[in-house]
Amino acid sequence: MKKLLNYLDKRMKFDSASAHCDVPCGIYDPITAQISALTVVRMVDLLTEHFENMTGSADFANRASRLVTTKEEHAEKTKHEVRIIWGDFMKEAHTQEYPELHKLVHSIMKLASESKQHVDREMAVQLVEKVNEFAEIFWKIKGEETVRAKAPYAPNLELVYRKV
Amino acid sequence: MKKLLNYLDKRMKFDSASAHCDVPCGIYDPITAQISALTVVRMVDLLTEHFENMTGSADFANRASRLVTTKEEHAEKTKHEVRIIWGDFMKEAHTQEYPELHKLVHSIMKLASESKQHVDREMAVQLVEKVNEFAEIFWKIKGEETVRAKAPYAPNLELVYRKV
Amino acid sequence: MKKLLNYLDKRMKFDSASAHCDVPCGIYDPITAQISALTVVRMVDLLTEHFENMTGSADFANRASRLVTTKEEHAEKTKHEVRIIWGDFMKEAHTQEYPELHKLVHSIMKLASESKQHVDREMAVQLVEKVNEFAEIFWKIKGEETVRAKAPYAPNLELVYRKV
Amino acid sequence: MKKLLNYLDKRMKFDSASAHCDVPCGIYDPITAQISALTVVRMVDLLTEHFENMTGSADFANRASRLVTTKEEHAEKTKHEVRIIWGDFMKEAHTQEYPELHKLVHSIMKLASESKQHVDREMAVQLVEKVNEFAEIFWKIKGEETVRAKAPYAPNLELVYRKV
Amino acid sequence: MKKLLNYLDKRMKFDSASAHCDVPCGIYDPITAQISALTVVRMVDLLTEHFENMTGSADFANRASRLVTTKEEHAEKTKHEVRIIWGDFMKEAHTQEYPELHKLVHSIMKLASESKQHVDREMAVQLVEKVNEFAEIFWKIKGEETVRAKAPYAPNLELVYRKV
Amino acid sequence: MKKLLNYLDKRMKFDSASAHCDVPCGIYDPITAQISALTVVRMVDLLTEHFENMTGSADFANRASRLVTTKEEHAEKTKHEVRIIWGDFMKEAHTQEYPELHKLVHSIMKLASESKQHVDREMAVQLVEKVNEFAEIFWKIKGEETVRAKAPYAPNLELVYRKV
Repeated sequence: MKKLLNYLDKRMKFDSASAHCDVPCGIYDPITAQISALTVVRMVDLLTEHFENMTGSADFANRASRLVTTKEEHAEKTKHEVRIIWGDFMKEAHTQEYPELHKLVHSIMKLASESKQHVDREMAVQLVEKVNEFAEIFWKIKGEETVRAKAPYAPNLELVYRKV
Repeated sequence: MKKLLNYLDKRMKFDSASAHCDVPCGIYDPITAQISALTVVRMVDLLTEHFENMTGSADFANRASRLVTTKEEHAEKTKHEVRIIWGDFMKEAHTQEYPELHKLVHSIMKLASESKQHVDREMAVQLVEKVNEFAEIFWKIKGEETVRAKAPYAPNLELVYRKV
Repeated sequence: MKKLLNYLDKRMKFDSASAHCDVPCGIYDPITAQISALTVVRMVDLLTEHFENMTGSADFANRASRLVTTKEEHAEKTKHEVRIIWGDFMKEAHTQEYPELHKLVHSIMKLASESKQHVDREMAVQLVEKVNEFAEIFWKIKGEETVRAKAPYAPNLELVYRKV
Repeated sequence: MKKLLNYLDKRMKFDSASAHCDVPCGIYDPITAQISALTVVRMVDLLTEHFENMTGSADFANRASRLVTTKEEHAEKTKHEVRIIWGDFMKEAHTQEYPELHKLVHSIMKLASESKQHVDREMAVQLVEKVNEFAEIFWKIKGEETVRAKAPYAPNLELVYRKV
Repeated sequence: MKKLLNYLDKRMKFDSASAHCDVPCGIYDPITAQISALTVVRMVDLLTEHFENMTGSADFANRASRLVTTKEEHAEKTKHEVRIIWGDFMKEAHTQEYPELHKLVHSIMKLASESKQHVDREMAVQLVEKVNEFAEIFWKIKGEETVRAKAPYAPNLELVYRKV
Repeated sequence: MKKLLNYLDKRMKFDSASAHCDVPCGIYDPITAQISALTVVRMVDLLTEHFENMTGSADFANRASRLVTTKEEHAEKTKHEVRIIWGDFMKEAHTQEYPELHKLVHSIMKLASESKQHVDREMAVQLVEKVNEFAEIFWKIKGEETVRAKAPYAPNLELVYRKV
């Protein structure tokens, strides 16, 4: 094999489908962020309930530690998934159509951080709501209809679903 | 603080909701496994297309490498998500009601491994189908209705969705 | 470089050694799962001992948190390593020869989850025992003899070792 | 130990130092993002050089694969580090003082994604430059002076450093 | 494409810049290890302060758990970053010029482990100091001048910086 | 709960078993490092064989990429596992008894890095050998006898095993 001549052609022309995205092109879905945000609320509920009957046992500490860690991971996942859709899928043009977009994403980051820092239901519920708003914008951009419905698992808050 | 007396009581009595699960209790959803399986198909399609116009450029190699890695990650994620639902949520009793369950999960592991090893659409499509079957059983156990519908992103295969 | 003709040949013919496995072919060894399961027991022992002299100090909380996290990681690792051997190495044929295999693997998942949820020695010891059974089947399939011997580190439970 | 009375007091009052941040409070430093962005350029250079003498050897493929992976990881790290500082440290008030902030962060996400997708020096150099701008704003907010100087390692581009 | 003849040439001749390193060649910087070591001290300070007003609330436990985890991660990161520079960048020849190098690295590993095990400021400060020594040797090898200056974030200990 | 008085006692007195180690105390076993090193050799063999029948297919690239990645991961794991035993378990005193210890560990780091950079059997075999030497010292310190025997999986090199 020899040195390749076509350096001009180095930057490959991808098909239009992949031109606007990181890999995996097109398979963006805010549902993962929404499930994670909902899990944050669930962990807050379980932590609150858990500390109502506090004991000094290893088992108590074990469960407390695991609930906090799960809350942490899902708050982080919420941030990460939203960042990917915002940073990879959403274009300059979208921020003109939805001028509140950047601020919304920034507020999701803030709420997720605060949900990590505290065991505070109100904050975590707000996080779910903001991620719902984000999901709504996402599906609008994709030209899909949405519907609000209760999640089929505790804490059974409403999520914004794509209409199947 | 002192040595705790109640060692008998060491194994905490969790509420029934959490007694049957790892943390996070109850928020199991096969949709993440399904999206990952679908992504495997998408990567196979993009790889196949990519190699139809093979070049020796760094850009070609860059994209090839990223597509393979993404395929790998999502095949792994498919396995991992299915293992969690099967290993944490599903009980002995469920395997009596759905005697094919263990074999189904084992075949998902196999298909995901083979989808890692090859760039083979048929295999990857079978993986999606098996994960759909798994999702169907899951939602039946939960007492939720399901519906088959095309995914809103390429490769637009049918997924089993919970009826919202 | 040009479009490649041999699409029929796309699915490469691997040597028989690699035909039945994910990569890395052949280097499966249940010892890692066994060491992890043993570590779960060790963490239970250290946690129990630690909580016998509970204090409200940062140092106490620091160690409690680390022990729980280590228990968590090794229970997860036990599951993961067993899943790999079961899902990649073990074939349909093996499940006919060892009809209890799927159920055994499922019970390992359950025991590892419960060992995460609690600080319970009996459960963790059962986990070690089930992983030992799994190791025994594995080495039988490979045609290797095994021997039971005490592990050279606390909690010094018996592990199933391949005869060297 | 018993049920705690002070639920009103549940949301702890942290000291002002930690009130405005995720953990770890205060130790934000854009230098990690800058080093990662620089590494992206370095990988582009090494990939370009590497493909000038392409061979079909396993060693060639090995190095190509590793360079792509390293580029990928550092582009991701650039995004992640910038997201943390933006999402945790930077407040609503800062976006009023620096109205271009959200757009700047969004463009860093875009450039990092494109630097993942291609082997394109211009894009990667722009990424370094945008992260430099971000670093400059960061240090201004902190009230620290900055200086532009060449990095002490190839590709020796200018970075914005805090004046020591 | 066919079997390649040049197997003699299999081990590629990299340019001298990359001959002495893992990838990413040349972009080694001890500042990440130093920031991590400093973060360990910060976590010790926050933990100590936090336990001065201990409560039995979920919020208290939440913060305690997160501080311990962050301490853990940064102690680990300190070890990892130092290992990379020592294991990849530093040569046999350097250990002749700096005969204390191996012992220094070993003591960093020890101090980081002990900083994980305890909440002990003295130990963590020693860790920062040892990593500073390591940074000093590193920059000397690179032929760069250094300066000691207070870090711009709490706990504001002195770090060894490269002179910009 | 109130401010705790016993600050003098802050640094807990662990039992002697845990005094000399990170968590998990005592369960150190070089076998994981040895299996990883062996896997590096296996990947070199599979890569070499794979490139003997190079094609331009997606399937060829897929397998090449996966083999390189697996080699990379196991070389890294070798380093990591050795670093843990050396940095956590081995004491100053051991380096006096085994004066070559630091240099041996450093050479393992070097060989693992070079095994990442190349597809070179000789180097990878040397890595296995050095890790064997390390295992031998480890078991001597523990007062356990060892035996050299062929590994039960390709490439069937000799490993140093603890005598069961």
